[in-house]
Order: sequence, then structure tokens, then C-alpha cells
Amino acid sequence: MAAARIARYTARLLRNFGICRRLFGGLLLLSALLFSIDPVCGQAPTSDPLASWNDGPAKKAIVEFVRATTNQAGPKYVPPAERIATFDQDGTLWVEHPMYTQVMYCLDRVPAVVEKKPELKNVEPFKTVLSGDREAIAKLSLKDLEVVLFATLSGMSVEEFRVDVRRWLATAKHPRYKRPYTELTYLPMQELLRYLRGSGYKTYIVTGGGQDFVRVYAEQVYGIPPEQVVGSAGATKYGYDKEGKPTLTKEPKLLLNDNDAGKPEGIHLMIGRRPRAAFGNTAGDRQMLEYTGAGDGARLMMLVLHDDAKPEYAYGPAEGLPEAKVGAFSQALYDEAKQRGWTVIRMKDDWGRVFAFEN
Amino acid sequence: MAAARIARYTARLLRNFGICRRLFGGLLLLSALLFSIDPVCGQAPTSDPLASWNDGPAKKAIVEFVRATTNQAGPKYVPPAERIATFDQDGTLWVEHPMYTQVMYCLDRVPAVVEKKPELKNVEPFKTVLSGDREAIAKLSLKDLEVVLFATLSGMSVEEFRVDVRRWLATAKHPRYKRPYTELTYLPMQELLRYLRGSGYKTYIVTGGGQDFVRVYAEQVYGIPPEQVVGSAGATKYGYDKEGKPTLTKEPKLLLNDNDAGKPEGIHLMIGRRPRAAFGNTAGDRQMLEYTGAGDGARLMMLVLHDDAKPEYAYGPAEGLPEAKVGAFSQALYDEAKQRGWTVIRMKDDWGRVFAFEN
Repeated sequence: MAAARIARYTARLLRNFGICRRLFGGLLLLSALLFSIDPVCGQAPTSDPLASWNDGPAKKAIVEFVRATTNQAGPKYVPPAERIATFDQDGTLWVEHPMYTQVMYCLDRVPAVVEKKPELKNVEPFKTVLSGDREAIAKLSLKDLEVVLFATLSGMSVEEFRVDVRRWLATAKHPRYKRPYTELTYLPMQELLRYLRGSGYKTYIVTGGGQDFVRVYAEQVYGIPPEQVVGSAGATKYGYDKEGKPTLTKEPKLLLNDNDAGKPEGIHLMIGRRPRAAFGNTAGDRQMLEYTGAGDGARLMMLVLHDDAKPEYAYGPAEGLPEAKVGAFSQALYDEAKQRGWTVIRMKDDWGRVFAFEN
Repeated sequence: MAAARIARYTARLLRNFGICRRLFGGLLLLSALLFSIDPVCGQAPTSDPLASWNDGPAKKAIVEFVRATTNQAGPKYVPPAERIATFDQDGTLWVEHPMYTQVMYCLDRVPAVVEKKPELKNVEPFKTVLSGDREAIAKLSLKDLEVVLFATLSGMSVEEFRVDVRRWLATAKHPRYKRPYTELTYLPMQELLRYLRGSGYKTYIVTGGGQDFVRVYAEQVYGIPPEQVVGSAGATKYGYDKEGKPTLTKEPKLLLNDNDAGKPEGIHLMIGRRPRAAFGNTAGDRQMLEYTGAGDGARLMMLVLHDDAKPEYAYGPAEGLPEAKVGAFSQALYDEAKQRGWTVIRMKDDWGRVFAFEN
């Protein structure tokens, strides 16, 4: 078997480079032969692709799912084209406390917006944001923040926006960790992304966050290209700038609210296939997991429970954990997970290491 | 150079299969060495990937663009991740006359819709469609057809729709060619899709037609997976069927009108990158080509002109060709193409063969 696979792959290699087979044939045969009889060859790689995961039900569920769906001879095999895995971002792939990273960006952008529109200076919630009073800002409602989001995420071209987000990400630091936000991704989830991709899965981000925002860094940070980022999306308007150059301007109009029912709707719109695996951490991911689980064959649904305040944060309110302003994991969601056979990833038990920068 | 590339690729091969390098090293070195000195190796494949294209400016433009953007040492090199090519469908990849295929599907679906909603029986335009009077149906306005489209493309689950489209495609035949619509793709464009993919380009359909409709057959017909089909898209609504199973229902609400300015807007929404190459055939593709051409570096913009009535259809009104109900190629578009350096593909001159079924 192994010798035949080597021969097949080497043949493809030869075609790719137009190497004359005549010459290579003898070497190929010889090497395949040597491979098939040498007992030290063909060992499984010793490094664990999920090294930051502790042995336990979560890691086991992942490994078993991948093995079953990639085993061509097994009953649960999934053809490569159908291997779609979707990941929520905030609280699933990276830190979402004390506040979503994109909201931090929008708050930081308020002075620039007010400079262009001075009439907003004395209007709430802009006035509070400009005051710099951290306590007052922390008390802003999600409705207030939405107003800030619309004002700060529209009115510029998509290129200008990209440049501005890049600039911000290069300088902004998380208040607790004093590191760029892009370093605050969970190492076990990064391993999981790579492990799934290495097993032929196409990994997608499906986030309530802004699609244009996440696309700026997703390729560099997660290895996920822009076209595999599905998020809440505002409309853009095609037009021409002063020099007559075609341009797309970001409009203050929501086209896709990629939360709750919006997640499966967004998945259908942008991907057009039902995922085989879905990962989230809050009630906003419930419908994505339900939709994923309603398909035939092997499916994997997982929810991250933040129960480790030391390296990260602890919040629920499931399992008696403290309530949180963002990213709530309710007891009802916990019960549904149990009832439907979704796996809860407990940070404390299931992850040996949370961040790459930890020693 | 070549030896180093072979060595790099073989090293990756070795990692993939966990073969011990120690053993393979000698063979690898030897073969790389032999390759680098043997003059008969490294010949380009003799078969022309664009065999149905006649030699001329269109074929030349394609080949030069691909060579320039894939030549790592050249000034116009484009990294693989940015190799995005977008194709209109109707009239660019397959026949759109005498009427768009999807409209034919919708007309055929009217009896099923009226059976569910008998009150539509005596209401226009349904009454005319039900009459079966071909002449009267051909006279329906695009506004009338829109009413039929909304009525026939909503109210069912996305899975039910998929099954129905598949059933229709398996039986429906084009009135002139008496063949399934899916056989009426242009062979030169199929070659172009494969040639671009073989050169590391990701090929997308960006169609004014329905995204859900085209996704049913795009993978089988064009080798383009559902997630690479951008089209006009209706909203879906997440809910639960009678058995409590999660389901997405097609709504009579347009989310994305993927024509004209909607094409670059749809490309930004669904792909998030500016294409490097764009192909169309009508004024509805103008903005997509403009947007593509407004980017830096090498870009390829092409428009198909239908000027060959014998194997296909001849319509303009550009260049004195007869006016058409669908897929008009105006003189203004022709002039813009000339002015902006877009290449016009003239079916008669540039294509040696239009369909795969021709002898």
C-alpha cells in the first residue's frame, strides 16, 4: 500500500515538473522498494498536532471526528469538497473580554469621526466616549455601542478602512495583557485550525463581528483568507472618486447580522454548504451548531466554556460562573449542549496552555 | 534553480508520508543532480490548454497575462492567494438565448406554484404563462418575468429547491439544440477556467442569475464549488420544520442584485478581494470589469461578443449586430472596452469551436 502511494505521488511530482520519466523510473522503483521493506520507515509523526490540549473528552471528540471523516474505507467518510468547519471568533478563537476588540477599535476611532463631524461632539454616546472616563464608557449600553459602530465603520472606502484597521492593530494593546490583540488567540484553537486544514477541512470564521474588520488580519493571524471570513456585513456602494477611479464606500446599512439565526443564514449565503463541524462559545452560536448538527453523517459541535480566570477569564452564567457583559454562556445553552450531544470545551480541564506567549 | 525546487518539493513529500529522510537523502540528491544536467528533461507539455481558441489577440492576451502573473522573477508576479478570476455566467460561460436558463426553469415551475396558490390562476403574468402560448410568453416584459421569479424561487427550503432544480436540469432541453442546458457551455471558456485554475487562479462565477440556482450545477458543470458562486441572492429564514428540524426557507426578498454596480459590491461581500481577471459579455458586467481594472499591477478584462449565428447566436447592438432582448452588448460598452484596453472576444474569429458536442 505505502509503496503504491509513494509511487503515485512521485508520479504526480514528475508530471508537475515535466521531468522525463525514463530517467527517474529506476530511482523511483528502488526508493519505493526500499521504503516498503525498511522497518524504521513509515512511522507516524511523533509530534502531537493538538499538543496544547489535555487528554480528555474534548480532544478525543476532535480526533475521533477527524479520523472517522477522513477514513475512506469507513462508514463516516466525508469527501474533501464537503469538509467545511466554521468557527465563531470572539471568545472562541481569541479573547473577547473586557470588550470585543472591534468595539475597542471603534471607541478609538471616535475622535477622528468627531473631527469630521463636529456636531457629534456634544451628542451622546460620543460625548461620553470623548470624555475618556473609563468607568462611564464601560457603562455604555450595547445600543449606545451600536450607534458608535455605525458612525465609525462607514463613510470611507473599503481600502481606507483596511489601512486604518491595520494601523490600529499595529499599535493598540489589550488593557490586561499589554500585548497586541492579535497575539491573544487561543493556542489550542490555532492548533485545531491547522489540524483540520491538514486533514482537508476548509476552515471558515463565522463571526458576529464585522466581516471587513476581521478580514484585515484573519489570513495573517489564523491562516484564513478573506473569502473564508463570514461576518456581520454592512452594504457598500460602488461609485467613483474625484479622479474618476472606481471605489466601494462603506455604508451605514446592515446587510447581514451574523448572530443567532443570522449565522446559518450567512453560512448559506456565503458558503452554500452545511458545515461538518462548528465551534462557538455563546448563545449567538446556538443556531449555527443546531444547523450543523441537523445534517446527515458525522458532525462535530463544540462550545468553549471560559472557566479559567487565571490565564484568561471566567464567565458563564452556566455552571455558576459569574455573569458577563459580552459572550454569555447561559445554563440553557449548557443544557441544550448536553441534550444534543455537543461537546463543551472546559478551558481549565481541556487546555494545557491557553496562549502561545505563556511559558 | 530547478534542482532546488525538486529538492523542496520532495522534502515536502517526505514530510507528508513520514518517510525517514536519512534513507531517501542520497536518492534525492542523485535525482536532483541528474535532473539539473539532463538536457531532455523539463520540456513543456505539448498539448495546448486553449486548443479551441484560434491564434489571435484574445488568446494572446490570456496567455501573456497568465505567464506574466505566474512568473515569480518578473515584475508582474501575483502571489497565489491574490489570483482571483471572476466570470459572468449567462452569455459568458453558456448560452443565454433565446432566454436565460433560469427564467425557463421559473416558467416551467409556474404550474406547481399555481397548484399551491390557485388564486394566481387568473392573474397576470401567471395566466399568460399557463396558457402555453409561446408567442405571448416571449412578449412578457422583464418586469413580468421578475414577478414570476419571485413567486417561483421562494417559499421552499433550500434543500427542496436544490432537489427541484436538479430534477428539472435532468429533463429540460434547450429549444434549439435539443440538449440539456448544462451541455451548452462554451468549450473555449471551459478551457480557460481550467487553464487559470491550473495556473493557481481561484475561479469564481459572478452572475446576475440566482446564486442558489447556479450552485446546484456549477461544481459538476464548471468545476466551481458552491462557495465560489456569487449571484443574485434572496434572503433565507432560519426556522424549524414540523419535526423540529432546523431549516432555511427561501424568502421573496432580494438581498443582493448581482448586476451592474451589484457585481463589485457582491465581489467585496463574498470574496473580499479585487479580482485580477474578469470576464463578461454585457453592460451588466461593466462595473465588474472597471473595478477589476482599477487595481494595481497586471489585470485582464475581457468581453465575449456574440457574432456567430451559425453555431450560436449573433447579437449586439454593437458593431451593427442585431439588438437582443437579453445580453445586449451596446456600442457604448464596445467603445469603453476599446478606450480602457479591455479585450473583446469575437466568437467568430477567436473561437475555433464553440461547444464540446460539435464535431
